[in-house]
Amino acid sequence: MKLSNLVFETTKDTPSGAKIISHILLLRAGFIKQVSNGIYTLGMPAQRMALKIENIIREEMNKIDGQEVKFPVVMPKELWALSGRYFSIGSEMARFKDRADHDMVLGMTHEEAAVHFVTNTVNSYQKLPFMIYQIQTKFRDEPRSRGGLIRVREFTMKDAYSFHTNADDLEKYYYLQYKAYENIFRRIGLKNFISVKSDTGMMGGKIAHEFMLLTPDGEDELVICEKCGYKSNMEVAEAESETFINTNNLSFEEVFTGEYKTIDEISSFLNIQQTDIIKAVVFVEKDEKNPIIVFIRGDLDVNESKLKKVVQKEILPFDASNDQTLAFGNIGLISLPKNVRIIYDKSIEGRHGMVTGANKPEFHIINFNIDRDIQIAEYHDVAKVKNGQKCKNCSHELKIENGIEIGNIFQLGDKYTKSMGMTVLNEKGEPMNPLMGCYGIGVGRAIASIIQDSYDENGMILPVSVAPWTVHICPIRIDNENVKNISFEIYNQLNNLGIDTVIDDRNMSAGIKFADADLFGMPLRVVVSPKGIEKNEIEIMIRATREVFIIKKENYIEKIKELIDSLNNGK
Amino acid sequence: MKLSNLVFETTKDTPSGAKIISHILLLRAGFIKQVSNGIYTLGMPAQRMALKIENIIREEMNKIDGQEVKFPVVMPKELWALSGRYFSIGSEMARFKDRADHDMVLGMTHEEAAVHFVTNTVNSYQKLPFMIYQIQTKFRDEPRSRGGLIRVREFTMKDAYSFHTNADDLEKYYYLQYKAYENIFRRIGLKNFISVKSDTGMMGGKIAHEFMLLTPDGEDELVICEKCGYKSNMEVAEAESETFINTNNLSFEEVFTGEYKTIDEISSFLNIQQTDIIKAVVFVEKDEKNPIIVFIRGDLDVNESKLKKVVQKEILPFDASNDQTLAFGNIGLISLPKNVRIIYDKSIEGRHGMVTGANKPEFHIINFNIDRDIQIAEYHDVAKVKNGQKCKNCSHELKIENGIEIGNIFQLGDKYTKSMGMTVLNEKGEPMNPLMGCYGIGVGRAIASIIQDSYDENGMILPVSVAPWTVHICPIRIDNENVKNISFEIYNQLNNLGIDTVIDDRNMSAGIKFADADLFGMPLRVVVSPKGIEKNEIEIMIRATREVFIIKKENYIEKIKELIDSLNNGK
Repeated sequence: MKLSNLVFETTKDTPSGAKIISHILLLRAGFIKQVSNGIYTLGMPAQRMALKIENIIREEMNKIDGQEVKFPVVMPKELWALSGRYFSIGSEMARFKDRADHDMVLGMTHEEAAVHFVTNTVNSYQKLPFMIYQIQTKFRDEPRSRGGLIRVREFTMKDAYSFHTNADDLEKYYYLQYKAYENIFRRIGLKNFISVKSDTGMMGGKIAHEFMLLTPDGEDELVICEKCGYKSNMEVAEAESETFINTNNLSFEEVFTGEYKTIDEISSFLNIQQTDIIKAVVFVEKDEKNPIIVFIRGDLDVNESKLKKVVQKEILPFDASNDQTLAFGNIGLISLPKNVRIIYDKSIEGRHGMVTGANKPEFHIINFNIDRDIQIAEYHDVAKVKNGQKCKNCSHELKIENGIEIGNIFQLGDKYTKSMGMTVLNEKGEPMNPLMGCYGIGVGRAIASIIQDSYDENGMILPVSVAPWTVHICPIRIDNENVKNISFEIYNQLNNLGIDTVIDDRNMSAGIKFADADLFGMPLRVVVSPKGIEKNEIEIMIRATREVFIIKKENYIEKIKELIDSLNNGK
Repeated sequence: MKLSNLVFETTKDTPSGAKIISHILLLRAGFIKQVSNGIYTLGMPAQRMALKIENIIREEMNKIDGQEVKFPVVMPKELWALSGRYFSIGSEMARFKDRADHDMVLGMTHEEAAVHFVTNTVNSYQKLPFMIYQIQTKFRDEPRSRGGLIRVREFTMKDAYSFHTNADDLEKYYYLQYKAYENIFRRIGLKNFISVKSDTGMMGGKIAHEFMLLTPDGEDELVICEKCGYKSNMEVAEAESETFINTNNLSFEEVFTGEYKTIDEISSFLNIQQTDIIKAVVFVEKDEKNPIIVFIRGDLDVNESKLKKVVQKEILPFDASNDQTLAFGNIGLISLPKNVRIIYDKSIEGRHGMVTGANKPEFHIINFNIDRDIQIAEYHDVAKVKNGQKCKNCSHELKIENGIEIGNIFQLGDKYTKSMGMTVLNEKGEPMNPLMGCYGIGVGRAIASIIQDSYDENGMILPVSVAPWTVHICPIRIDNENVKNISFEIYNQLNNLGIDTVIDDRNMSAGIKFADADLFGMPLRVVVSPKGIEKNEIEIMIRATREVFIIKKENYIEKIKELIDSLNNGK
């Protein structure tokens, strides 16, 4: 490709609204252009990256017997009504009526389509296990698209679906996918990625893992134990229960706390630890009025994902402004109104000498002993793990890091085959619902993650395996006939050898060309200059290390091949 | 791929509702499955064909300096309002409101997205010409989806957009696309295709060509002159004007024609040629009431596409049942009510001794001389070419054939750059709207067309370049250990050599395997049988010719390579 012809424009300034590095660099290099909120056009360099990533994914999926198929983007309501998700998914799913007034949806995932495809086509257990996958456009009407290609509304995704006769077989195949994912992320050049246990969310099923790129820009919080290897998304992370000894056996009593309401205020005012306070956090079920109160240790926060699983409904923070029944800031365990649902977190189990609200303004209760002063039938773990808590496996201190989800794998079980009535005959000739796994990777997010994982102050540093071009030629003084001829000779030779090469044939200064080459981040930069030519030399630079090699022209191909090999081998 | 694992099911019977051969065979082989009206899932074999076709398209687009990009499927209303097509396109375009209540559309073509992408990115004539293209899913809410992958609602399409400073440059590049299209269709194995001049329809612009596969199943009519090479879609086809000599100079007069109304009836009753009658055909503008009457020679029909261009509006047949003003069956040139719009076809220009309606029941007028008896300011060519008319270039007899549109190319001009305000600075530093061309090929329709163009009573006959697999191995008696081992040895060897091979490792009879192999239509079939093995022989058959070669096992690779070469060279 000749840059004189490429549709792009680079900028020096940080584009307004762009906050995270991959977004900034993709915009600054002109690789992407926003069409609407969370909807982008990929320019040629980004699309070349996408194609290379897709081919790596394809190879790894084919290695584990994947059958590439293509499901439609637009599907009829009926398919999603069968699984129930037409109703359980809200405004994240785009819906429209077609010209015949039929309800249609845009696919945000394709479990329904996968089950539809195999229903009545696969009839016997003998065909199982098998895996089908596609690489296709999806639309998910994200409320908060952000970060360029990190969180978008329209995206290209590889989604795979496997079908099994039993749980062992599913688990075995799940592990093959796990390994394939590791291969994919390694091959596209990611270094700082891990896998964590994750929530199954709207997909259903029980076991799920997310692959996460570790980056401070990540919006997911990950709980990691560096000793035993425990790794979990915050949504499902657990910590070891802590033990508190308090032999206080005084009767509980009300104390005046006046205007003091927050945990900080009460802790200072009563001169006690935050861990000795019982905090009340109030939620409400979506479309309901009655509050849900969570009682949790004062130093902890509620993990809404865990709470959602306990409540089995969508929950929202409670809007106190319209409420007359609860004494906000003074909510406590006794004398609550009857219309509330109460959830007790494990962190308060059996605790003595606690402070809790008195359920009336300006008062709290002290010396409250759980077990003695109240009957609690059941505790739930709905606490968010915090820095410094201990690993529940090995008691080592837990670390919290930020990450971007780059892929996920789920053991779905029979949720979809059962609801959609997909059966095969087992060995005894009886119908059974196969168990499914599903496995997703977003291509656009992979592009962003690669940049997020490898850049410097001058721009992107792209791996050979996915860079739009491997070699970026900068002819200095392209108006010099010799420079021009030799540059294009190199350009043609490399492309003919199958080494993807781009040439900056614009009539511009060396400064601009070098800055754009750095920003673009192709692995190798070749400089052809009048001075170099006089000495029959060309300059090759490794973008990542800025190491420079001055090479006699007749040896440059050999050197470039050698450098590509060493870059591919991670040297 | 092992057929024991592949998700597919073949059937012997013609699936209900399938009428054209490509649809029947794709369903019978289990290559596709309908999800909704005009919406399909592609199984692995069809998707492999799609990928191979896409790669051929990609190669040909890249050869003519195409930059592969990716535009979104979902676009905001604003983009399409700018070009005006949000309003001019009707229910063919799917629309929905996103969660923030914004109007969104599904892309059915991407001129708007292409112009959006280059606006403010390409600023100077120096970047021109350039071409950007994508291979992406599109949705067009066809009122009449039919024929399997021939006319669908959701489809994958290559769409390309070129930008130019002047008409000469556009025309030059248009011709490069034309040649690239010929290459693509030849490379994917189509034989019976031609290009015809075509209507620009909703795309706008002036010059357009369609590439057409000639097939009796085609729904497009094509007008062809075999002498001078004139080829045109019926929509825009023209024939030579015919000369009629009639020196009749009698005054016109009313005659009683009673119940006789149709051209056939009047022609018999008055004993005259149909060419001596002036036919009236009545239309109405969409959403309007006043009729449009076309006067045309009795033996000709109105070409609605041509008429639409004259009227500059959508038109519909007039519903006579609610009308009191027109004497249907007796409509003629004089004494018409005032609220009608009249279009005179060229075929009646200057004619003498004609019969026309009297605009009252039971009467016609005879001896009507145009020019003498009526003042006509303007004639238009709105006639449909019919078999036997003469070529307007060379007077040779025209032939009408049926075809399926497999690709189209348009010279759009500045319609989109102008309406959307996309400018570049020209050599003098003045802003100008670049001229555009656009170029489309549907991938699914290409799959169907390949089959439509090459099959026999047993199934598809697929070309090497796009067949899902090149070699189809049928082991006879796979329960025989030797057969199994040798079959898999061949399977692995061929795949390792990069020759895509499928093996029918199901425990089934030779009859079923051969029937399925014929239906699938892979170019070469390899049979491994107990008898063959005894003699160290394997059998290779060319699917197209059914030519059989018995080859010593040690020579089979050589033979397969030789046969692939000869198939690729069209021998």
